[in-house]
Amino acid sequence: MMKIDVLTLFPEMFAGVFGHSILKKAADNRAVEYNVVNFRDYADNKHHTVDDYPYGGGAGMVLKPQPIFDAVADLREKGVSSPRVILLCPQGERYNQRKAEELAKSDHLIFVCGHYEGYDERIRKHIVTDEISIGDFVLTGGELGAMVVIDSVVRLLPGVLGNEESHRKDSFSTGLLEHPHYTRPADFRGMKVPDVLLSGNHRLIEEWRTKESLRRTFFRRPDLFEHVELSDVQKKWLEEIKNEQK
Amino acid sequence: MMKIDVLTLFPEMFAGVFGHSILKKAADNRAVEYNVVNFRDYADNKHHTVDDYPYGGGAGMVLKPQPIFDAVADLREKGVSSPRVILLCPQGERYNQRKAEELAKSDHLIFVCGHYEGYDERIRKHIVTDEISIGDFVLTGGELGAMVVIDSVVRLLPGVLGNEESHRKDSFSTGLLEHPHYTRPADFRGMKVPDVLLSGNHRLIEEWRTKESLRRTFFRRPDLFEHVELSDVQKKWLEEIKNEQK
Repeated sequence: MMKIDVLTLFPEMFAGVFGHSILKKAADNRAVEYNVVNFRDYADNKHHTVDDYPYGGGAGMVLKPQPIFDAVADLREKGVSSPRVILLCPQGERYNQRKAEELAKSDHLIFVCGHYEGYDERIRKHIVTDEISIGDFVLTGGELGAMVVIDSVVRLLPGVLGNEESHRKDSFSTGLLEHPHYTRPADFRGMKVPDVLLSGNHRLIEEWRTKESLRRTFFRRPDLFEHVELSDVQKKWLEEIKNEQK
Repeated sequence: MMKIDVLTLFPEMFAGVFGHSILKKAADNRAVEYNVVNFRDYADNKHHTVDDYPYGGGAGMVLKPQPIFDAVADLREKGVSSPRVILLCPQGERYNQRKAEELAKSDHLIFVCGHYEGYDERIRKHIVTDEISIGDFVLTGGELGAMVVIDSVVRLLPGVLGNEESHRKDSFSTGLLEHPHYTRPADFRGMKVPDVLLSGNHRLIEEWRTKESLRRTFFRRPDLFEHVELSDVQKKWLEEIKNEQK
């Protein structure tokens, strides 16, 4: 079972996300155990202060090392193996599916979520093993980033996904963007499903889907082609799609 | 006031995130109003079904057009202006701070969050104005992506951030990664704060911070330099950092 600890000043933010859908099912099935901890509880000063002014001046507060060092030490002791200690921050490595797969191999993850404060550099240097950024946008805290990473990791754990959900996982893993989907009705208020999908001809349907997948990838995310090995016929179709533009 | 509607099958996931920190403060200050809607309530069939099998075969379910079309039409009618209708999906444009700033100018956003199902293509084509992906990783649903986009947008609305939080926002906007931060104690269990930060010499402190910011950006995110105009002295420092490696 994977153990996931989250250090945050806003533990209540997590209940809704951990309590529904796949993340809940994974905990119910004992594939994972969540433990959300307010690191303010570890502050050893009278007022349970967790931040302080920055050395060298400037606006903004900085998270003190003591509460986070002691919280991580405590959680580490309660675990069975050496945990990954993950800091969510804009300076971190860009998160992607490869990283999710890597983290899914661990059996203990500790997430450190600061809010709008900075982190004392000694936290990064001495206890954090992974600094992760989910993208180039400014968020109020690390909490949403932690939820994103946790969701993407937990769904990779053995036995977590049912058949229904696994399909979606697989379809992403072709390396191309998904083809369009249609369901009933065939004519919805005048908007129609492409004829080929109603034809019952599986070869033509497969061809249409592959072409649409290539087309969508070409227009929206051509960078993805760099990491995909196309078959000869896929290469030919891709050329046709490019030529349609001329 | 910005109006934010969220269409989801898991409305309870949002309470913790909308009920704390900046997102709560923004609602309390009437900078924004959240409305989380279960689009199952709009399904016009007896069993309130929202998905169905895909035309053309294959595993996985597809979200039917009717419930989402009717939910968006209803929410659109209740709004005052033409809303942005945002679909969270892996096929969408990659989210970034520029997009957050663009969305912050709107006064009505409607988020459509599918879960592991696919979306009927007619939803994309006819009612969605923006398809957004927060990154190249697989999530269980659009809910976490919507929370991420909402957090990054709401904090840009006028009057939402206090002084404390604005500082962090500003520091990101130099286009480089932030320099390290330190707070008390100067010696934490043998781990020391760099002397320069204790020197009281503001010129040297500023120089150290700028160099560390350049250094961190060079090692972690050299791509950011493409979009930043460095001063002559910054360029010189960056050359020095590069030469340290040789």
